[in-house]
Amino acid sequence: MTDKPFTLRIPFPGFQPSRTDNHITRHLSDLEGRFMDTETYEQMLEEEDVMLYEVYEVRRPEIAGEMLFGIDIIHPGKVGDEFFMTKGHYHEMLETSELYYCLQGEGFMVMETPEGDTAVEKLFPNSVIYVPPRWAHRTVCTGQNEDLVNFYIYPANAGQNYGTLEQFGFRKIIVERNNRIEIIDNPNIKHRS
Amino acid sequence: MTDKPFTLRIPFPGFQPSRTDNHITRHLSDLEGRFMDTETYEQMLEEEDVMLYEVYEVRRPEIAGEMLFGIDIIHPGKVGDEFFMTKGHYHEMLETSELYYCLQGEGFMVMETPEGDTAVEKLFPNSVIYVPPRWAHRTVCTGQNEDLVNFYIYPANAGQNYGTLEQFGFRKIIVERNNRIEIIDNPNIKHRS
Repeated sequence: MTDKPFTLRIPFPGFQPSRTDNHITRHLSDLEGRFMDTETYEQMLEEEDVMLYEVYEVRRPEIAGEMLFGIDIIHPGKVGDEFFMTKGHYHEMLETSELYYCLQGEGFMVMETPEGDTAVEKLFPNSVIYVPPRWAHRTVCTGQNEDLVNFYIYPANAGQNYGTLEQFGFRKIIVERNNRIEIIDNPNIKHRS
Repeated sequence: MTDKPFTLRIPFPGFQPSRTDNHITRHLSDLEGRFMDTETYEQMLEEEDVMLYEVYEVRRPEIAGEMLFGIDIIHPGKVGDEFFMTKGHYHEMLETSELYYCLQGEGFMVMETPEGDTAVEKLFPNSVIYVPPRWAHRTVCTGQNEDLVNFYIYPANAGQNYGTLEQFGFRKIIVERNNRIEIIDNPNIKHRS
């Protein structure tokens, strides 16, 4: 890993950066237990383990002062009524932020804190969402046919904690009801006692 | 200052974010001593103290884990042969990075380290420049009629050190010679002994 400054190019359309250190793909099977409609989930999985999203990461040393960044692309689609989404995570170092610059598509950033605060912000081209420290975050694509594409950046020492939300679920989910996009309470949320 | 997540919109064109906590403008008089051709500088200043660049800042607590970000707009023009540019700075906390996402225009990021390494990277729409820790950085607009516009982001505890470069100058400057854009050694550089 060099310490020299460097440039990458984000092509429109396509969005695969000219420099990528890691290409992550997440399929339906990777999000087991995260969609509300488990019956439809199992049926879909039997037919095809479709790709829900992918991430092009640029890596840097994971130390304070550095930043990690890249492109995430969430594909359009639903499991039952619920739109395709990322796993979502807290940062391992809870007191670290993240910023998203939306490049294409439409969707939502679904967020919550360990204390139970929730927030949902709309993503659209040239919107910038600042996720303050302490807020878990997940992106949801609500476009009919279009990928949701975001440039993301966060402190390189943040780390990621997927376990908490895998266990408890996000408090809010994004669904389509009567041809309308709705933000509803997650019926499967496992309340902390 | 709330800790809730928030969204801002970057309008195309215009680029003034829908949320701004601080609007900085820098004029010719603010960059005294920084352009090579001091005679032309003085002549221009007598006629008009033109605006060279402006910054729309979104502020956050200046602590580790948070990030500061906004839009900077460098206007087209020259002082003699030398293109309009920002003051440029080191981070006060030297071991912190910065990232620029170019939204419009053309220009260069001019960089150097305390050890005397230099780097110059081209800025163009949808280019992303990562300035690693330790690298001072300045943006230069080389467009004929078009503003150079960048989205910038850096760790909120970085701080800024303008003094070192005000005293010594950047090692490389960007000039127009025979209708060509050239990167040359700064003839006025004050070498560290």
